[in-house]
Amino acid sequence: MPRYVLAFDLGGTNVRGGIVGEDGTILSRGRDSTGPRPSGEEVAGKMAIIAEGCLKDRGLKLADIAAVGIGSPGPLDSRTGIVIETPNLGWKNVPLAKLVQERLGRPTFLENDANCACWGEFWKGAARGTRSAFILTLGTGVGGGLILDGKLYKGIDDTGGHLGHIVVNPEGPPHWVLDNPGSLEAYCSATACIRDARAAAKAHPDSLLAKKPAEQVDGAYVAACAEQGDAAAKEIWQMLGYHLGVACATLANTLNPEVGVIGGGLCQAWDLFAEPMEKECRRRALGPPGARLKLRRAELVDDAGIVGAAGLAVERL
Amino acid sequence: MPRYVLAFDLGGTNVRGGIVGEDGTILSRGRDSTGPRPSGEEVAGKMAIIAEGCLKDRGLKLADIAAVGIGSPGPLDSRTGIVIETPNLGWKNVPLAKLVQERLGRPTFLENDANCACWGEFWKGAARGTRSAFILTLGTGVGGGLILDGKLYKGIDDTGGHLGHIVVNPEGPPHWVLDNPGSLEAYCSATACIRDARAAAKAHPDSLLAKKPAEQVDGAYVAACAEQGDAAAKEIWQMLGYHLGVACATLANTLNPEVGVIGGGLCQAWDLFAEPMEKECRRRALGPPGARLKLRRAELVDDAGIVGAAGLAVERL
Repeated sequence: MPRYVLAFDLGGTNVRGGIVGEDGTILSRGRDSTGPRPSGEEVAGKMAIIAEGCLKDRGLKLADIAAVGIGSPGPLDSRTGIVIETPNLGWKNVPLAKLVQERLGRPTFLENDANCACWGEFWKGAARGTRSAFILTLGTGVGGGLILDGKLYKGIDDTGGHLGHIVVNPEGPPHWVLDNPGSLEAYCSATACIRDARAAAKAHPDSLLAKKPAEQVDGAYVAACAEQGDAAAKEIWQMLGYHLGVACATLANTLNPEVGVIGGGLCQAWDLFAEPMEKECRRRALGPPGARLKLRRAELVDDAGIVGAAGLAVERL
Repeated sequence: MPRYVLAFDLGGTNVRGGIVGEDGTILSRGRDSTGPRPSGEEVAGKMAIIAEGCLKDRGLKLADIAAVGIGSPGPLDSRTGIVIETPNLGWKNVPLAKLVQERLGRPTFLENDANCACWGEFWKGAARGTRSAFILTLGTGVGGGLILDGKLYKGIDDTGGHLGHIVVNPEGPPHWVLDNPGSLEAYCSATACIRDARAAAKAHPDSLLAKKPAEQVDGAYVAACAEQGDAAAKEIWQMLGYHLGVACATLANTLNPEVGVIGGGLCQAWDLFAEPMEKECRRRALGPPGARLKLRRAELVDDAGIVGAAGLAVERL
């Protein structure tokens, strides 16, 4: 009898869920908005409703479910299943795994969203078939995850893999929260991209970047401008690729992994930054780790979190 | 009956060896110069003579030796025991482990010198009792090594752990061989220190750094100048500490290790660079990995290579 896993991907505005088969296929899906500042009980309740819908959809019962996996923003403690803090939801010390397990009655595991996305791409996506990989998720921030020797690597306190906080250039732009100027996140997140686009719009009033009100400029718009040949917008993606490539070279020389997966919303602009990223990584990586490392675009995209949460739950069973 | 290991540390000018007890103590030592451009046979022969002397010294026979460990400059293939290339010795594809095993008749293992030093500090030095650590060896270059989950981490091709090639600032000074400007090695090696001292001597003719002919300035002299209060020399160590701290923060955020060990000849200036190193690392590391990471001065110093080569040989037996 095949085993099924229920998996959830909790974000700042939505909770998505699905039933995942043992081959990593998502067999049924559901979603709901989290609502403003929901309690842990409310989110667990919404997850139970999504679960009910998905089970009904496939004609399954809770007894058919081997485990439940939840990906959540962190920091969190994956051993106790407690979300320590999520600024976007206003949570402190919410025992989310316990709350969900009480409702669904199946073994429930919690992991941070970046690690779930990493495991998803490793299990079924752009890093499948390897034993070592990293992922960089270019969203509002830059998420990261590491697979070493076929296992999720999290460090002694579960706080490794924060690849967005690699220092790319210590003299670089300030971070909006942390005192770590010039981090990968300060260069290559959507937040940084928008900051750079606003600065470019001021410096180049003729640029397409200046044709929209500053507060409406987002990564998609910066990509659209570049695709239309706007020089200032193209330069933003060139520099984003350059700084990504620097970080990838550091990871190559440090860890000698097989694949680096680049995911997140900014990947819509892959064709605009992949070349400078590759070039800078090749240039700076030592011969053997440089020749080994393949930089690839994420394949599972929005599904990586759910697929990875399911896969990690099975690993931990 | 206690087990003994013969271990060797092969350098560009000397080969050192010793008998190491199972507790990591060096019980007997020997050394010889490698001579100019020696063959693999010649070096293996010198190792056999050192072994003979050490055995005699302790009243032991080859039958008392469980294994032989050799630390060598690389790149090398630790699985086949072949030194692929060592510019300092002029070697290409020298099967050093086999040559030594033929002479000594005991199982012989080869590992690169930086990894041996790392394992030595992990087993018996500044990182003992941990499960995760890194080492940065500040010599002519900057060597590196990683311990993750209690094991030497070398990556998929044995070419990970090259921490000297972490990019600290992509706009930084050129490397003398590689096209990786602003790497840790380009900032924090003795080579970089001497380069900076020469530049400072030109810029500040009143500095103590300018009182010696440029070709006689070395790390020890730059340290001595700083200890006498020379501002230009102190600045060199401040900046070396700053750049070391940047790299340590990247390692903390990436790997969340327990200890970072700083070794190598430049550690004689520890008191001159430790404070800015700590400060910059604390500043840039995320809360939990930053609180966890302790930066420590290497304890075994010149013995780390021999102790580590012995320990790794036992691990592989």
